[in-house]
Amino acid sequence: MKQSTSSHPPPDAPDATTHSAQNPRLSPTASATAAELSSLKIRLHDALRQFPDFPSPGILFEDILPIFADPNLHEALIRALELHVSSSYGENHKPDVVVGLEARGLLFGPSLALRLGAGFVPVRKQGKLPGPTETARFEKEYGEDFFQIQKDSIRQGQKVLIVDDIIATGTAPSSHLSQLLSGEAGGARRYGVTSSVSLIHTPLGGSAAAAGSLVERLGGTLLGYIFILELDFLNGRDKLQAPVYTLLSSQEKSSSRPS
Amino acid sequence: MKQSTSSHPPPDAPDATTHSAQNPRLSPTASATAAELSSLKIRLHDALRQFPDFPSPGILFEDILPIFADPNLHEALIRALELHVSSSYGENHKPDVVVGLEARGLLFGPSLALRLGAGFVPVRKQGKLPGPTETARFEKEYGEDFFQIQKDSIRQGQKVLIVDDIIATGTAPSSHLSQLLSGEAGGARRYGVTSSVSLIHTPLGGSAAAAGSLVERLGGTLLGYIFILELDFLNGRDKLQAPVYTLLSSQEKSSSRPS
Repeated sequence: MKQSTSSHPPPDAPDATTHSAQNPRLSPTASATAAELSSLKIRLHDALRQFPDFPSPGILFEDILPIFADPNLHEALIRALELHVSSSYGENHKPDVVVGLEARGLLFGPSLALRLGAGFVPVRKQGKLPGPTETARFEKEYGEDFFQIQKDSIRQGQKVLIVDDIIATGTAPSSHLSQLLSGEAGGARRYGVTSSVSLIHTPLGGSAAAAGSLVERLGGTLLGYIFILELDFLNGRDKLQAPVYTLLSSQEKSSSRPS
Repeated sequence: MKQSTSSHPPPDAPDATTHSAQNPRLSPTASATAAELSSLKIRLHDALRQFPDFPSPGILFEDILPIFADPNLHEALIRALELHVSSSYGENHKPDVVVGLEARGLLFGPSLALRLGAGFVPVRKQGKLPGPTETARFEKEYGEDFFQIQKDSIRQGQKVLIVDDIIATGTAPSSHLSQLLSGEAGGARRYGVTSSVSLIHTPLGGSAAAAGSLVERLGGTLLGYIFILELDFLNGRDKLQAPVYTLLSSQEKSSSRPS
């Protein structure tokens, strides 16, 4: 049971993200990497905590902070993300820049960038970054918000990975969305999309799509997205036009996690 | 010139933070540590950028993001902070927990915690953290704001370091404060104190004092504060009742940095 909730994608779908696309058959090294990654994922998934009705009724909040509170789990997280990147991108396609979204993407984006030898660049809410910036709009409940990036933070042709804690964009049943799209506190940016949101180039998109748009406007090459968690029933990954990797899955359609 | 602006405290004051209080005379090892730290500080200080009149007229904004954009400087930052901690606290007084303040304390607090083998715990704005929390108020221009910490994030007796990017609390000349205390964007929390703020136990204090109060309410032992930058003229360190270490200094009374 734990095994099944900690693996992603579910067992009936091939997990193209744990081995290189060039070599679908695992080499002994790739096999060792996959085994290590699988073991790390189980430990990390077990550390998640769920808080019902936060930030508002009907929302099950996934708390990733216990991972950061324990240095062994914290190390496991960064190691798992590093393993994913090193096994997914060859030496010639390593990211030059890791972009992290305010606020939870700041918790592990810089550590991952350090580990990869890449630069770290934050995407922040409007008005927080000095100097020339690019701005992208994204949807929230009853309105919109704006993300910014410093214009000189990414150079033409640099390879960029975008990281955040949760991907929850996509076209969910409206009954789900009405629950998800409530309240500014804690979850609004994370769940702040509506069913009209679809493609990364859509002017009004989710926060991840907005960040992708900023990277591309600066001339960066978007290698892909990395999230710690995916709210599976939202099918968020179908809506982003760059490869999406999620370390852990949660809140699967048919089951809730045993406490 | 560069040397003098990158050293802190200024040369006429002893820098008690670069060697252990138990052994004011530097051993060969401590001397090597001090030399490495000094060299790192110069590199880091040279990377800072200043933006005049951001977020509002009269404020010179210190931008630390170039440090994170360059993996070598980023590594230098974490190494410098690690050197400070290892030389200031013996094996028996190592921090158990690093607490980082939203948002810029999240940029390097987790990496430092990983390097030290300590846990990382965020202090966030009210409403962002699920589960039972402690709340502390701090002053902003024309009002107040609230910080929260998860109640179970620190255990009784754990040794805690608090980190943030800038210390700017304290009693500044009112002409300075009227400039500093303007605008929510970008700097309000960083500069959000008034001259009535003084001690860490004062109910209405700056953001760093509020975080210290939260740590102590959870039973943590506050080892001290670490900041990257200090706005020297504000004398912020005089107002916190725990040791304060600042890696770099800036905006000294009598000089502005050559561009």
